Amino acid sequence: MRPTGKLHLGHLVGALTNWKKLQDDYECFFMVADWHALMSEYEHPGQLREHVEENVLDWLACGIDPQRSVIFRQSDVPEHAELYAVLSIITPLGWLERVPTYKEQLRELEGRDLTTHGFLGYPVLQAADILLYKAHVVPVGEDQLPHLELAREIVRRFHHLYHGELFPEPKPLLTQAAKLLGTDGRKMSKSYGNTIALSDSPETIRKTVQSMFTDPLRIKMTDPGHPATCNVCGYWKVFEPSRAEAMWEECRTAARGCVQNKRELAEALITATEPFRAIRNESSATDRTIERILQDGAERARAVASKTMAEVKRAVGL
Amino acid sequence: MRPTGKLHLGHLVGALTNWKKLQDDYECFFMVADWHALMSEYEHPGQLREHVEENVLDWLACGIDPQRSVIFRQSDVPEHAELYAVLSIITPLGWLERVPTYKEQLRELEGRDLTTHGFLGYPVLQAADILLYKAHVVPVGEDQLPHLELAREIVRRFHHLYHGELFPEPKPLLTQAAKLLGTDGRKMSKSYGNTIALSDSPETIRKTVQSMFTDPLRIKMTDPGHPATCNVCGYWKVFEPSRAEAMWEECRTAARGCVQNKRELAEALITATEPFRAIRNESSATDRTIERILQDGAERARAVASKTMAEVKRAVGL
Repeated sequence: MRPTGKLHLGHLVGALTNWKKLQDDYECFFMVADWHALMSEYEHPGQLREHVEENVLDWLACGIDPQRSVIFRQSDVPEHAELYAVLSIITPLGWLERVPTYKEQLRELEGRDLTTHGFLGYPVLQAADILLYKAHVVPVGEDQLPHLELAREIVRRFHHLYHGELFPEPKPLLTQAAKLLGTDGRKMSKSYGNTIALSDSPETIRKTVQSMFTDPLRIKMTDPGHPATCNVCGYWKVFEPSRAEAMWEECRTAARGCVQNKRELAEALITATEPFRAIRNESSATDRTIERILQDGAERARAVASKTMAEVKRAVGL
Repeated sequence: MRPTGKLHLGHLVGALTNWKKLQDDYECFFMVADWHALMSEYEHPGQLREHVEENVLDWLACGIDPQRSVIFRQSDVPEHAELYAVLSIITPLGWLERVPTYKEQLRELEGRDLTTHGFLGYPVLQAADILLYKAHVVPVGEDQLPHLELAREIVRRFHHLYHGELFPEPKPLLTQAAKLLGTDGRKMSKSYGNTIALSDSPETIRKTVQSMFTDPLRIKMTDPGHPATCNVCGYWKVFEPSRAEAMWEECRTAARGCVQNKRELAEALITATEPFRAIRNESSATDRTIERILQDGAERARAVASKTMAEVKRAVGL
């Protein structure tokens, strides 16, 4: 995950909840991708280090366990840059120019100059991230599938060039996650200012939920509602699944109004996000604890990464 | 220097002799650029490691002193890959596509697929090589000036983006070297098979010099020669400067013939290259000695490089 600072409800629903479960079945490596953040934010890297710490705090609060899993910062493991350099050498420019997200991002991230050599290599670095740990599966969303396919192509090219089978071809582990929209009904994104941070205060959450759009066709409380097109009702499905069906029915029959819906949703969100506020008040979760977790993670990651890198160097003749 | 295996007379005249002298006035870092070799040879890296050792042997024989200077292998210092990654992020693709040597090499190195992401970044890695040691000057030939200019541009961009003056702008230290042609009169290059290796045996040297082209207008020994356009006479200028003027005059007046010229040149070359054969017979110059020199060099290089890289990471916010 790229370090973007405090995580929001979208991260919880789209990734963290799934990550927590993956720990039961897999040996997991969770990486804060600060190199990748620099690739797109290099003009204004700002609080990159702070963002890394906020990310890790949210991971811990959600149940990512530094004992069972390896939690580390990409730039603490120099082998990422080394394997990136090797893979970059065998990756044709055409493959990178054709990655569908590339042109999309150049267009979407307006106001930034992303026509750099590094940004073009973004998915090559992702391949290095995966291959260093000989990962068999990578939990990704649909939008990341082209990048994973590129990683698989790079693996095949590496094996073809150097006559070996060093890496497994990584497979996607698609997350079956409900899509959570932003509080204004658009795609949830920090840059739209339509998120609820996992560590937001109860007051902030109440105020934000208060201002959420509901069913635009329901003018008066006595009008029947259309929960399937109401963003607040959508949140209910995700955060109060056991009560959602009954609540949707009450909405449709005008037995409950939007104000009550929002008030109860706010309380449900406050409960769901309690651990994320709590960890910030725990004396154990100081910056030093995070640093220790990251250092320990970096050591464990390097133990694997340096072994892979030695094999890679031997294979390519360095 | 890229590791190309046993060095030849062109390297001695064009670089090594100068490098040896530089040690008197500068703190020198001499690097075997195996990452760079991989960038163009990745399809057939072959004996890359062996080539590194042969290179270092020739450096030692020539008087590059591992006590005074730092002799190291690029891939032993992971900070090269790390700084390459950072600089790659801030380097516009357009700058790289416009480097005059880029298109030239794509064209010249036929039969190789060099349209890769890594090869496009070739001069960025060179910039990292230079900047890691905060080098003030780099001994280069004219052909490398565009790459050095790019390194200077990257320095200015880095300082502009990150509000600091971390690196000196590296200046070229142009080598005033005589140009030595290959034994067939073309540009000297291993791929043309027209070189004399520094460690060639006396027999090989005699045989090779014997076959060199001389003045094509001098048919019989009694014809007056034109030493300025004779490759063998050119070699005399370089390897027997004290005797060259008299010898040229004898050539012009047909007082000496081409056979004598070649015989005496061969003996001069055998004398000049004696240390390069000798070191290969010394018991001290085993592979293990070379490995020890490279390990020691890598440690000394890393001491500087890791300090720079820490400053770079702080500057860019990693």
